[in-house]
Amino acid sequence: MEHNEKRFSFSQADLFLPGISLDCVIFSFHDGNLNILLNRFLNYSKWMLPGGFVHREESVDEAAARILTSRTGIRDIYLRQFHLFGDRNRINIEENRDLLVNKAAAETEQVNAIREEWFLQRFISVGYFAFVEFEKINLPVNPREDTQWFDVHAIPVLYADHNKIIDKAISTIRGQLNSIPIGYELLPEKFTLTQLRIIYETILDKKLDRRNFQRKILSTGLVYKLDEVYKQWGYKSSALYSFDKEKYKDAIKNGISLF
Amino acid sequence: MEHNEKRFSFSQADLFLPGISLDCVIFSFHDGNLNILLNRFLNYSKWMLPGGFVHREESVDEAAARILTSRTGIRDIYLRQFHLFGDRNRINIEENRDLLVNKAAAETEQVNAIREEWFLQRFISVGYFAFVEFEKINLPVNPREDTQWFDVHAIPVLYADHNKIIDKAISTIRGQLNSIPIGYELLPEKFTLTQLRIIYETILDKKLDRRNFQRKILSTGLVYKLDEVYKQWGYKSSALYSFDKEKYKDAIKNGISLF
Repeated sequence: MEHNEKRFSFSQADLFLPGISLDCVIFSFHDGNLNILLNRFLNYSKWMLPGGFVHREESVDEAAARILTSRTGIRDIYLRQFHLFGDRNRINIEENRDLLVNKAAAETEQVNAIREEWFLQRFISVGYFAFVEFEKINLPVNPREDTQWFDVHAIPVLYADHNKIIDKAISTIRGQLNSIPIGYELLPEKFTLTQLRIIYETILDKKLDRRNFQRKILSTGLVYKLDEVYKQWGYKSSALYSFDKEKYKDAIKNGISLF
Repeated sequence: MEHNEKRFSFSQADLFLPGISLDCVIFSFHDGNLNILLNRFLNYSKWMLPGGFVHREESVDEAAARILTSRTGIRDIYLRQFHLFGDRNRINIEENRDLLVNKAAAETEQVNAIREEWFLQRFISVGYFAFVEFEKINLPVNPREDTQWFDVHAIPVLYADHNKIIDKAISTIRGQLNSIPIGYELLPEKFTLTQLRIIYETILDKKLDRRNFQRKILSTGLVYKLDEVYKQWGYKSSALYSFDKEKYKDAIKNGISLF
């Protein structure tokens, strides 16, 4: 009986820090679009940012890395904490109750009650953003969830304040574009200047003059032209470029002024 | 008896979100020095950043504003969240036990036990920085604490990870100097360009050429010269300047590139 009590009282509250969650805004670049990874529990209608909780024995940053790996299947990702979301009513309790009803498999009442106590508490959430190479992730990572890339221009209405978290991630990156290696992390080793420009245009939310951009980026010496071209059927071929890794790292450390 | 039980079980845990604290790095500028406000409990040797906890019914940002007002006596302060400190061992439990022993007035064992349970839990801490005008604060605000300004170049070894929190505040401001109105918030209405330069030098941790700085700052149109001079006994008189508030706000919004 004591053993059973032990088993039943085992819960999120024993494993995780109370009231703190993490949400990850994971960016990738593919086919001319900047994308964000969203997931959805089976039987629940709203998409949400991949997230999780902090184990009692790990740091918050370690938790973010663990969650990111579990949601993408890859390690060593560029990952930065950017904001704590602490509004009193950032989560709608009724929305969470709805989520629980849909998510819960038929379990004992006691287990459901423990789970409910956990999920219906007030949560503050630490926002992280991450950049991954699109090709490196094979979806779905977890068969019990629906996971998809969404173009940043076509994000649906999300669970809780997750739309606000995405907006804040993008405005943070915009404000620190000179020290965040977004192009470097998002692009494959060989890329076209059009691809790089589109990334900057999306974050800045404005069109950049093609020739000006090209002139500026080349004048920094951060990228160099390869002896290869990219050719898509029916299109003109485009020159391929690579980053000068050493110069790029220096530039990010000391700040680059492109825009 | 029930009434008493109620009274005894009243504790931090009933009022505040568990496991979350705030720490405020409050800057002022005075007499050629950039200063940070530190406080110390009576009978406890280590200085610490002014901080506190989050009420269950307020947002984290509201808690920061409330704590800042209670520690400085003033309202409407420039205040920004900058980082969450979430390392597993950022607080030394023995240090906290020490603090408790010294802080606790002789109270009932039960009250002390409740307080101990609260203070010996793991805390993550949200860092905020704030800029205040030195002249506006009259110390000490609270007679039960020792409160002092410390030159940023002469910060002692602080409680927990508070030295690290200060370092991170300064490096964050440095990285976002083009969009953080540090001079505007720290200086009185009339100031000398030397005062403004010293603030930038301190944050950037390097000397700036006096004439270059003057030329650059004047070319932005953000400051204008007044028909008054500042005269200190035995020194040459210096021209006084003011910020063009409208231009300054625009510049901060869109980014200024001084350095």
